[in-house]
Amino acid sequence: MEVINTILGMQHICNELRLQNKKIAVVPTMGYLHQGHISLIEKATEVADIVITTLFVNPTQFAPNEDFNRYPRDLNSDFYLAKEAKSTYLFIPDTLEMYPKGFATTIIINNVTEKFEGVFRPSHFQGVATVVAKLFNITKPDFAIFGQKDYQQTLLITKLIKDLNFEINLIIAPTLRESDGLAMSSRNTYLSIEERQKAGIIFRAIEEAKGIIAKGEVKRQIINSYIHKCLRSIKEIRIDYAAISLASTLEEPDIFFAGDKAVILIACYLGKTRLIDNSLITFPNLLNDSNFIEGI
Amino acid sequence: MEVINTILGMQHICNELRLQNKKIAVVPTMGYLHQGHISLIEKATEVADIVITTLFVNPTQFAPNEDFNRYPRDLNSDFYLAKEAKSTYLFIPDTLEMYPKGFATTIIINNVTEKFEGVFRPSHFQGVATVVAKLFNITKPDFAIFGQKDYQQTLLITKLIKDLNFEINLIIAPTLRESDGLAMSSRNTYLSIEERQKAGIIFRAIEEAKGIIAKGEVKRQIINSYIHKCLRSIKEIRIDYAAISLASTLEEPDIFFAGDKAVILIACYLGKTRLIDNSLITFPNLLNDSNFIEGI
Repeated sequence: MEVINTILGMQHICNELRLQNKKIAVVPTMGYLHQGHISLIEKATEVADIVITTLFVNPTQFAPNEDFNRYPRDLNSDFYLAKEAKSTYLFIPDTLEMYPKGFATTIIINNVTEKFEGVFRPSHFQGVATVVAKLFNITKPDFAIFGQKDYQQTLLITKLIKDLNFEINLIIAPTLRESDGLAMSSRNTYLSIEERQKAGIIFRAIEEAKGIIAKGEVKRQIINSYIHKCLRSIKEIRIDYAAISLASTLEEPDIFFAGDKAVILIACYLGKTRLIDNSLITFPNLLNDSNFIEGI
Repeated sequence: MEVINTILGMQHICNELRLQNKKIAVVPTMGYLHQGHISLIEKATEVADIVITTLFVNPTQFAPNEDFNRYPRDLNSDFYLAKEAKSTYLFIPDTLEMYPKGFATTIIINNVTEKFEGVFRPSHFQGVATVVAKLFNITKPDFAIFGQKDYQQTLLITKLIKDLNFEINLIIAPTLRESDGLAMSSRNTYLSIEERQKAGIIFRAIEEAKGIIAKGEVKRQIINSYIHKCLRSIKEIRIDYAAISLASTLEEPDIFFAGDKAVILIACYLGKTRLIDNSLITFPNLLNDSNFIEGI
């Protein structure tokens, strides 16, 4: 695995690779790699000849009050893990390489970024869109691999690719979880031992909401209340949002219908650590359920 | 010359061409081609193997009160002229091809877009930046040719390419002029015969301002007043702006120094037609002028 630090160097390599008709996959990360990232890199090796893992803690997607400065970093471990996962290149530009003096460009994507995360992190998604467009132009990938854990981000990247006509196949890889269901995240390292023990509640709240949907609940407000109630069983939890919406548009109908593809989205603080998670669910057609028919 | 109407079709062709290591130049236009556009296409044929002229009247760079609906169109003439100038492809997408339902992306470039045109056409440049990024991703060019006539646009494209790491060589081609100095523009067709006879004043105002600078004038406000006075010699002229500024940043110092590269920028209405023009000038070093030394 080769480490590349300059944009021109990375672009030169990618141009050569594309002339050789090699298929390139990019895995954009902020480093501090964990098993979730590794699964993205492994997915990339399955679909492409060349895997470029990018490692850049992007300042423009953090608000001033957020954790940019204390975001965890461990270059040695990242190098070892990316190499083990068979990444071909590790692209590690510094901030000035990505944002030289006079940088003045912002990509704004409306609609899918406006709710949920967009409310609590108003400048986050424009930072993401802009840096990802840069990474796309630097690595010229055929495939881009993102994790489902940042669900709204996957909607954003889908729109970015479509609206700006990037010729990139987006692959969204499933969220990897700890044994208690906690979604893997570099930020989990912020949790104290006590907080870590309680953090499984987020996944349990999602699972329990899915349980009442499987049993026939279709009213959005009842589902949302149920998720909130589950989360509040841990008194250290502060909820930013916990809600179900339509998966592709994030619209929030009062009632869901059979076949509706929905997403349960949660962002909450556990102590000082902000955690997010989500899960997709398709509303069942209970009229076709044999138990129901038997009951008539 | 082949006409392409779909994005996928154009991208497919460009991918094949790049695999063959052909150099591609794109010439983005809004059609109604005139000799100025032809000179851009001819420039493109000099630097690249393949020339793609794009023809798209981009609605997002027009404000609601502007001339999108009456912007002149003549596809037959455009086809003939682009073919004569040896464009390899003519890319003519329709509006829905470029902006399908749900389109939600905007590229904003600060600084160079905020003054002059940016004041009078506040949403113009974000429309330009967004459509040009799309055209870049559709045509994957090695070269992009733009005319100097849209001077602020050339600064915007320079930033777009740099900030988003497009690997494109921008070529800015000189403004072509009618015999009286009027900058060629598709919008000149809006002028009545009387207006057309008076329109040369814009170029004359620029030339006369350059004259007083050559003689030693360095004060911005005096230069600006001089340009305004020249323009106001035609009573049908309404000035949006007429000003000198530093060419690369559009900063407006009170006094210019020898060696400063400046640009004179004019936008004005002649009747109902809005015309723009500009010219670059480097402030002379009069201390080295032999007449001045003799005079000591």
